[in-house]
Amino acid sequence: MIQQELACDLSLKWGRMRQAMREEGADGCLLSVDVNLYYVTGRVYSGYFYLPVEGEPWFFVKRPGGYAGERVVYIRKPEQMAEILADSGVQRPGKLLLEAGELTYNDYIRLHAVFDPPHTGDATALMRTVRRIKTPWEIAQFRISARRHAETYACIPACYRPGMTDLEFQYEIERLMRKNGSIGIFRAFGANMDIFMGSVLAGSNAEVASPFDFALGGEGVSPSFPLGASGVSLETGTAVMVDMAGNFTAYITDMTRVFSIGKLTGEAYRAHQVSLAIQREVQQVARPGVACADVYHLAAGIAGKEGLSSCFMGTRQQAGFVGHGIGIQINELPVFFPRSKEVLEPGMVFALEPKFVIPGVGAVGIENSFLVTETGIEKLTYAEEEIIDIT
Amino acid sequence: MIQQELACDLSLKWGRMRQAMREEGADGCLLSVDVNLYYVTGRVYSGYFYLPVEGEPWFFVKRPGGYAGERVVYIRKPEQMAEILADSGVQRPGKLLLEAGELTYNDYIRLHAVFDPPHTGDATALMRTVRRIKTPWEIAQFRISARRHAETYACIPACYRPGMTDLEFQYEIERLMRKNGSIGIFRAFGANMDIFMGSVLAGSNAEVASPFDFALGGEGVSPSFPLGASGVSLETGTAVMVDMAGNFTAYITDMTRVFSIGKLTGEAYRAHQVSLAIQREVQQVARPGVACADVYHLAAGIAGKEGLSSCFMGTRQQAGFVGHGIGIQINELPVFFPRSKEVLEPGMVFALEPKFVIPGVGAVGIENSFLVTETGIEKLTYAEEEIIDIT
Repeated sequence: MIQQELACDLSLKWGRMRQAMREEGADGCLLSVDVNLYYVTGRVYSGYFYLPVEGEPWFFVKRPGGYAGERVVYIRKPEQMAEILADSGVQRPGKLLLEAGELTYNDYIRLHAVFDPPHTGDATALMRTVRRIKTPWEIAQFRISARRHAETYACIPACYRPGMTDLEFQYEIERLMRKNGSIGIFRAFGANMDIFMGSVLAGSNAEVASPFDFALGGEGVSPSFPLGASGVSLETGTAVMVDMAGNFTAYITDMTRVFSIGKLTGEAYRAHQVSLAIQREVQQVARPGVACADVYHLAAGIAGKEGLSSCFMGTRQQAGFVGHGIGIQINELPVFFPRSKEVLEPGMVFALEPKFVIPGVGAVGIENSFLVTETGIEKLTYAEEEIIDIT
Repeated sequence: MIQQELACDLSLKWGRMRQAMREEGADGCLLSVDVNLYYVTGRVYSGYFYLPVEGEPWFFVKRPGGYAGERVVYIRKPEQMAEILADSGVQRPGKLLLEAGELTYNDYIRLHAVFDPPHTGDATALMRTVRRIKTPWEIAQFRISARRHAETYACIPACYRPGMTDLEFQYEIERLMRKNGSIGIFRAFGANMDIFMGSVLAGSNAEVASPFDFALGGEGVSPSFPLGASGVSLETGTAVMVDMAGNFTAYITDMTRVFSIGKLTGEAYRAHQVSLAIQREVQQVARPGVACADVYHLAAGIAGKEGLSSCFMGTRQQAGFVGHGIGIQINELPVFFPRSKEVLEPGMVFALEPKFVIPGVGAVGIENSFLVTETGIEKLTYAEEEIIDIT
């Protein structure tokens, strides 16, 4: 039953890929990056997946051994693929899509030489576009992650002990996540996205800028990995923002909640309410056809009207987006930023994360994962949204 | 003092890079990958590092803000670099090295267009070669990691509770590592190296082949990440191999120990002793000038003489190496495999991991990290090497 469900899901995905390939006049698409292989085959393996625009897919496997099925072929090196396809009567592609945004230059050049196509296109761009619209099976995976994510967050207050540092608090949350089924590994798109399980930001550490493309930063514990918790004490009056990845299935939910050590300043509570108001407003207007740029402007506009522009999405370094698609990677399309050309479509799943950094207190705000339905958006990650005092 | 030490270390590294650049006739080297930036600047940032073969390095930073110093220049996009260098009288490189084995094809093409050099070379290959020989500062970092790694492993027996699964055992070890200062993030070279903190392999799960280029496999918990612990019960008679990364500094030590649930079979203990014998033999002969291929043949030869070839480095899928360089990434050069052309040199740091998989029992064997000295090799990771019964 599950096998059949998965087979249907894969057919659906291949169909969407073929449609996108036709639109750009591509004859074949070759994939080998882990997230793309998982998307099109339901597993990560070492090897390649080749989809002709008209015809059935081929699975070229280097390792592990033991796979069987139609058009599953074991190879030692990519050069074998061209001959195997030719021997089977599969035409050499006139335009071949290769993962130009993910393969290393060396790997790209090698694969290009295997097929020596007259024309090429970018499979990374195509796959990121196709992967925006989630299938029913993928949405079911998100629902599993979301439920476990919310169950985990409900137990966070029990992780706290007086006198802890942000790191000690984070270690307990990490363990809780693992015990609740976190896969551990955290996948992101692009070179500038180093992260480990997620982020716990407390007090003034929330103001520290990082090199990475996440909403907020933090100093981290080493200049080799300058992000997140840095060892600050969780003193009374500190806001602790917990933004750990919901990788309880291959589909990651994104969810942020704020905890407090005792009472925060009035400004912190007010800014948190503005975040909740932004979320409510977006929930009112977001539906298929709405521009992602407009969602950003709506959020930034409310922050501005409330006089909070200077601490919206950071202080010293402000993130230029208020939300992003999620999936097998934490930063899929669409992105909610001013220059976005995208509009919401049914089946998109995204995280909305209006946040404020209050100097001397820490970060406040909210993040939830949403599914775009035919008529609006549906929240996936349900848990208490007010700031919870854990002392 | 620490600042000055780091500055000396960076000068030493730049000098070695310039030497390697001269040898291949390169005029400039442009780096932007996190591990290379850390190596040449002591931190990870978003931006670029440019080293002319004759002259001082340039630091082009996109984020975070706040850096200052000579030839530190903030840029918004890589295209600005060419003009800035030209304005400062830095010659356009006739041969430019770019990170062809790490940059995506798209990023490589963009950076190539910025400088439009008549000739190019592979900065990835050059940096991996230069990074093989560790500096005194780097070796000091390894010693810190090694000590914490060993201290952590000494506490592993206390993580065990009867009735646990391999996953539950691993979660407790992960927490212990984090409490002892593990940075969390785990860096590896190449596309086929997905991993999370390390590996705990128990019983027959040690026989399961994975798609990844690690010594052993394991089924994992999801087809999106088929590696390592899979949820098997730790029954009496099971060998549990713990191979968690020693990323207590940016320099990762590699270390494996085997624990048992009660008594194992005689064959398992015998194979473990063969691993220890291989390690002893390698310690006897390894010194500068010894070929890495010969180290492999020595190890595989002892396994063969003992009739254990069919379970050396795996059963259904056998790894083709018995050791590897370590550093900022877990899989640096040299690699100890039959076709290696490399010889040991003073300052190399490597992991030696002769392991056997005993069907029905699990994996046994040893892994330690070693420094190549002027006269031999020095073990860095000291801890009990016999199989420890944790029941």
